[in-house]
Amino acid sequence: MSGQELGVTVSKDEDMAEWYTQVVQKADMADYAPVAGCMIIEPWGMAIWERIKETFDNKIKEDGVESVYFPLFIPEKYLEKERELLEGFLPEMAWIEDTGEEQVKDKIAVRPTSESVIAPYMSDNIQSYRDLPFRINQWANVVRWEVSDTRPFLRTREFLWQEGHTSEKDSEEAMEETLRRLEQYREVLEDLMAISVIKGRKPEHDKFPGAKITTTVESLMPDRKSLQSATSHHLGTNFSEAYDITYSDENGEERLAHTTSWGLSTRVIGGLIMAHGDDQGLVLPPEIAPKQVVIVPIWQEENEEEVRGYAESVQEELEGEGFRVELDDREHRSPGYKFNEWELKGVPLRIEIGPDEAGSGELTGVHRDTGEQERFDRNEVVHHVEEDLDEMQDRLLEEQQEFQEDNVREAGSEGEIIDTIREEGGYVKANWCGQEECEEPVKDEVHAEIVMVPLEEEDIDGACAVCGEEAEEVAYFSKNY
Amino acid sequence: MSGQELGVTVSKDEDMAEWYTQVVQKADMADYAPVAGCMIIEPWGMAIWERIKETFDNKIKEDGVESVYFPLFIPEKYLEKERELLEGFLPEMAWIEDTGEEQVKDKIAVRPTSESVIAPYMSDNIQSYRDLPFRINQWANVVRWEVSDTRPFLRTREFLWQEGHTSEKDSEEAMEETLRRLEQYREVLEDLMAISVIKGRKPEHDKFPGAKITTTVESLMPDRKSLQSATSHHLGTNFSEAYDITYSDENGEERLAHTTSWGLSTRVIGGLIMAHGDDQGLVLPPEIAPKQVVIVPIWQEENEEEVRGYAESVQEELEGEGFRVELDDREHRSPGYKFNEWELKGVPLRIEIGPDEAGSGELTGVHRDTGEQERFDRNEVVHHVEEDLDEMQDRLLEEQQEFQEDNVREAGSEGEIIDTIREEGGYVKANWCGQEECEEPVKDEVHAEIVMVPLEEEDIDGACAVCGEEAEEVAYFSKNY
Repeated sequence: MSGQELGVTVSKDEDMAEWYTQVVQKADMADYAPVAGCMIIEPWGMAIWERIKETFDNKIKEDGVESVYFPLFIPEKYLEKERELLEGFLPEMAWIEDTGEEQVKDKIAVRPTSESVIAPYMSDNIQSYRDLPFRINQWANVVRWEVSDTRPFLRTREFLWQEGHTSEKDSEEAMEETLRRLEQYREVLEDLMAISVIKGRKPEHDKFPGAKITTTVESLMPDRKSLQSATSHHLGTNFSEAYDITYSDENGEERLAHTTSWGLSTRVIGGLIMAHGDDQGLVLPPEIAPKQVVIVPIWQEENEEEVRGYAESVQEELEGEGFRVELDDREHRSPGYKFNEWELKGVPLRIEIGPDEAGSGELTGVHRDTGEQERFDRNEVVHHVEEDLDEMQDRLLEEQQEFQEDNVREAGSEGEIIDTIREEGGYVKANWCGQEECEEPVKDEVHAEIVMVPLEEEDIDGACAVCGEEAEEVAYFSKNY
Repeated sequence: MSGQELGVTVSKDEDMAEWYTQVVQKADMADYAPVAGCMIIEPWGMAIWERIKETFDNKIKEDGVESVYFPLFIPEKYLEKERELLEGFLPEMAWIEDTGEEQVKDKIAVRPTSESVIAPYMSDNIQSYRDLPFRINQWANVVRWEVSDTRPFLRTREFLWQEGHTSEKDSEEAMEETLRRLEQYREVLEDLMAISVIKGRKPEHDKFPGAKITTTVESLMPDRKSLQSATSHHLGTNFSEAYDITYSDENGEERLAHTTSWGLSTRVIGGLIMAHGDDQGLVLPPEIAPKQVVIVPIWQEENEEEVRGYAESVQEELEGEGFRVELDDREHRSPGYKFNEWELKGVPLRIEIGPDEAGSGELTGVHRDTGEQERFDRNEVVHHVEEDLDEMQDRLLEEQQEFQEDNVREAGSEGEIIDTIREEGGYVKANWCGQEECEEPVKDEVHAEIVMVPLEEEDIDGACAVCGEEAEEVAYFSKNY
């Protein structure tokens, strides 16, 4: 953040796109990079990504998923083995053709995803049923050369993610694995980030290239557009056929493995910003906040020593209990400036300490999300902070859940779908025959699409809202990111 | 590891290059990748890298260095601003020229290092002395398109590393920062990896492109060649001039910042393998071993229950104390097979548990490095394991230190330098005038070079061993990786 006005100058409700851009830059989340469409992830954004990473990595490691690292570069001929994958990513691929002073012989792609190098590795390393399940994961950068509408975190030409890849013995286990990771994504989003999600399945025509089933966790943003927050794919035997991933079963018979892949990227940080932020800037759920508490001491020369000592003892006690605490004792900034800056950065709880607090053995706390102030006994600080942060974490998630529930609407005809999207936004729920053609009029008219078929949707009995043929499922139409 | 013979089939002393290749692959450290010169880092290798990463990352974060992530892609015009850097890396650079279905307008490099995008960021974010020191670090992949002699970990076209970049207020602070990180590299290498290092300075003609001073931690490998394990650079004002990194000082005067950069890469894993391994495979120092203890239970049908229960209780107790323990209860592998496999993977301590141990309330321990066996009371397992691992950690480092000390030899003339390199290898210490020309005959004759001027070398008084002019410093000649 340099030479910019400190605060956010537009209202989130009035111009969310501009608000987003300002918050991202002013809160030191990310900055624009020299190559268009790429981003610099700044310290505050990176600290958030590291918490997401650590949380998810612990979950999968507990399940025995092992870390690996595969190369950035994939030869064209490896990609060609699974045509759907290649064709799906071709328009967004970046190619290396020149190195040092010589041309490379064969075209080399910068990975957009790693199925095509990981599948051959699995083929080499799996012989018998005893090698299954075979589950690996990497944290890496990938490149998808988006041509338009790039925005920090939400859509960038390079992004960071994890990609898990597994081989399972049959389709049923592959489906269990697909849903196990989807559930862990839900946990990361809801429990860590306080972002409400709906689990769903992508329509056939919008699956990951080469997948049998693509599952997704979708979150409704405040502008009532859906954000695909993470996806988990059952790849069936498409990749094991293309790359020869076979194993001999208990009876010595050769079988094809069923593979899965699943990914969560820096994109979720875009969701975090949008879901909770307000006109003052970011609002970070305590579980994910790099700093949960900021202590702002306010002193005059004559009581500096007393106030500082008091503030430091509070910091020490809270840190001793495992809270992430910042004591902002910068001399050249006023308390007001500090309040604004930490509000911009979304720190959940501010503790103000002046001579008054130091004198009375009390503390003043201010909640980032509600602005609520409270005065409490310094000796109860640990208990108080714990309760405040827990409550805020719950409150933020509940708000998101309510918002989401309030924004699922039913529609019984094409016209009703279109009108509801146009007037209300959010998710519009309609019976659907399963054919892509029935999405098209909605896409053409209001740029909304079927973002998912929820996994937990009731059985349906009726006709497709668009074509009137027998309905196969319940589709959620929505505009999306 | 697939369809290969389990054990290493050559002796480390007889053919270290082949031994290295086999250990890397058979111990699941790394595998070859489809693009020549790249590698797949496999689970065992990645677990080691993650420990290195965590250890170093904690050290620098305690010092207030913040995590960031800069883009993989750097426009050519950014690189051109610091000519030395561009020219230094040009022969190894990979370029993107084609994306999706269109050519990119300006050439884009895949980063070989990130000074040229991080310097402009520092320029934007530093205004006053209060912003200094400005210290950031990223964990990332970089690409240097080596044309020959690529080997997993030691020299690959893509590798993982951290690159720290800082701006400091003057040359003195920049030197302190440079040496602070060098010391932390020494700690990682010696305390975590049990690899002995000598701290030195690279000769003028072998500095990092654009650096004022390049410092290095060098380690002597068993073939008596030096491995540059990590480097830390004082960049002076070269980058701050090229990219305009200035700040206003306490008196409001505009000054140039002095910058540093420092990096540690997956290369150190190559050093780890070579330093400690033996003809059975890897030997991992306990501090870095992904598993410190492997328990191999040995049972017949009639005592399976008893032995298993006994083994599990030992595992549980050790894990409860924070040890990293594997209980290898695979049914389809013989104890002998398991012994070989875990020796290959270098696990420091093996605990064997048969009906005999279960019956007598004892355990049998076998040390990976010495092969020594011991029988001890099961009730003392925690104390015993702790002591064994500590001793092994110390022993491995001491061995390396002794080896290194034994392999520093003095030489007083060009002929003596050459003969000593040829006959003994190791470091050959000689007075040196500081001119590159005096390295050349040694390079031509025995492919050795000046790998460093040790930081803690005595003052010298004498003539350059090669040209006879006044000596400026003591140079360490060595063959190197």
